[in-house]
Amino acid sequence: MRIVIDGMGGDNAPLSTVKGAVDAIKEYGVDLVITGDKETLENEFSKYEFDRSRLEIVHTTEKIENEDKPVKAIRAKKDSSMVVALKIVKDGYADAIVSAGNTGALLAGGLFVVGRIKGIDRPCLCPAIPNIDRGMTIIADGGANADCKPKNLVEFAAMTDIYAKKVLGIENPRIGLANVGAEEGKGNDLAKKSFEELKTIDINFTGNIEARDVINNVADIIVCDGFTGNILLKSAEGVAISVMKIIKEALMSSTKAKIGALLIKDELKNIKSFMDYSEYGGAPLLGVNGGVIKAHGSSDAKAIKNAIRQAIKFAEGNVVEDIKSFITSYNEKQAGDEEK
Amino acid sequence: MRIVIDGMGGDNAPLSTVKGAVDAIKEYGVDLVITGDKETLENEFSKYEFDRSRLEIVHTTEKIENEDKPVKAIRAKKDSSMVVALKIVKDGYADAIVSAGNTGALLAGGLFVVGRIKGIDRPCLCPAIPNIDRGMTIIADGGANADCKPKNLVEFAAMTDIYAKKVLGIENPRIGLANVGAEEGKGNDLAKKSFEELKTIDINFTGNIEARDVINNVADIIVCDGFTGNILLKSAEGVAISVMKIIKEALMSSTKAKIGALLIKDELKNIKSFMDYSEYGGAPLLGVNGGVIKAHGSSDAKAIKNAIRQAIKFAEGNVVEDIKSFITSYNEKQAGDEEK
Repeated sequence: MRIVIDGMGGDNAPLSTVKGAVDAIKEYGVDLVITGDKETLENEFSKYEFDRSRLEIVHTTEKIENEDKPVKAIRAKKDSSMVVALKIVKDGYADAIVSAGNTGALLAGGLFVVGRIKGIDRPCLCPAIPNIDRGMTIIADGGANADCKPKNLVEFAAMTDIYAKKVLGIENPRIGLANVGAEEGKGNDLAKKSFEELKTIDINFTGNIEARDVINNVADIIVCDGFTGNILLKSAEGVAISVMKIIKEALMSSTKAKIGALLIKDELKNIKSFMDYSEYGGAPLLGVNGGVIKAHGSSDAKAIKNAIRQAIKFAEGNVVEDIKSFITSYNEKQAGDEEK
Repeated sequence: MRIVIDGMGGDNAPLSTVKGAVDAIKEYGVDLVITGDKETLENEFSKYEFDRSRLEIVHTTEKIENEDKPVKAIRAKKDSSMVVALKIVKDGYADAIVSAGNTGALLAGGLFVVGRIKGIDRPCLCPAIPNIDRGMTIIADGGANADCKPKNLVEFAAMTDIYAKKVLGIENPRIGLANVGAEEGKGNDLAKKSFEELKTIDINFTGNIEARDVINNVADIIVCDGFTGNILLKSAEGVAISVMKIIKEALMSSTKAKIGALLIKDELKNIKSFMDYSEYGGAPLLGVNGGVIKAHGSSDAKAIKNAIRQAIKFAEGNVVEDIKSFITSYNEKQAGDEEK
């Protein structure tokens, strides 16, 4: 088993990717490939002691920037660290890629370079959001597909179910549908139809989930179209950050408050760490022919290391094979139903 | 000018509606009608001293409950405090209704009893969410229409623009489109097409707004379909409540933290009050032939009084007339464009 790292991807690359790679080799004894400017990478790696036989550097000359248009970048920058890393997965030399680079480009590259699993209509990006019980809740789709059909939500649910079992070790993931009300029959056209479809597949579908419960640990996976998923994730993240900011300001507003703030410093730090996305690894792109793990753009070495662990579990868990089995039997069943 | 209050609507009715009505009469010198069980209401009102000549009680025998199916309730409970109050607006005896009752029923009643403004395809509900600058941001549509076309979002924007100017006194409201990215061309099919349409009407359209900025005061009005609006509002509300709960728990976790919490009591109270929805009055249903103000279900007397003030401004501002003017000229222009 081998994992490839987009060495130049992310705000803190290549420092974070190199250190993350070194830590992952030490901790997991994994074989890694890393793409990027060879001299820069060699130079960085020379700072650390680790088992060099487990590392391979593939020299690339280009880098996809955050400002690059995703599809255009994937097509034009053939020798970028990201595209080359994706090709290494496509060619089967590595089982999975970890990248903290341009999200849109990685999605496009997952589709165009690695390729969709046969029968899957739309791969989905599955970021996780911290919940109040210090666990995490996956949003599927978290932003890859703005417009969806009920069939897509069924795929998202089934693929994420496999991922949650195999990679996160959740035994019987609770899967909910993002909606405007808890009762059946609520929602827009997509939600109503998806509700019906989700009942027909072999998952632990627990029904509608209201957005007010997004971080209340009422489900392990929340299924929705990518537009809704983005709104859900970003508003939750934005409000959490804003509320913490307001509290911080309030705590600096008077001497008395400042003393109070000192006394609760540990508790505030604890809350901040719980909302820290780097603790939670990356977001997998499910439905493509290999492991594609998107790490946060601002990933530090620890976040990269965690994303590599995720990629290892992804490969070990045969997630791609399980998704293939699901979609083959699901599509056969659908075709059979239509014939009737 | 006259405002009618659904006397039995809301979790705290009729105590809250009666006290809110009394306070509104005292503070604003407004003429009110209130619907509900006459004996109960008379009994409540007898506790207060105020100008009784400004109050009229209309006896009703039924009440729409929160559990009632909206459309069915409006059709079946003809003598409910809500339906009778809506009829009073429809008949022109009052200019606006304030109700803290079943939201779905009030929406249905707004449509079926009060009736749509001619030319308006879909009325929208416009709740406000507190923002970090202690102002508010309106979400239009906040949940009345799960599935929308671009034309609907144009109507929502134009109607809310009028409302914000006339009722909230915002001179040149900044109107943004809820979307998954700030740049033009982002989003689902609805968002992309709506973006183009919003540029063509005479409003201060400021472009796309990412959900992460929902409470960051980047717009006075955020336009979206009602499904997205509900997700946006509820996730923001839910996360704010959950984060405050986590902080509260952290502050009770040790003696040191408890002392710290005592010292910052005022600041925490201040933050809580800023997130208190009752401060912000109710949500108007725009696009129907009269003022329909939905107050929060848990409204206390103060929230009811604030909603009555909103209803007064709504009537004084001739919001309905302005919406009529807008939609007539907009639809004429559209018809003209199509002929070309």
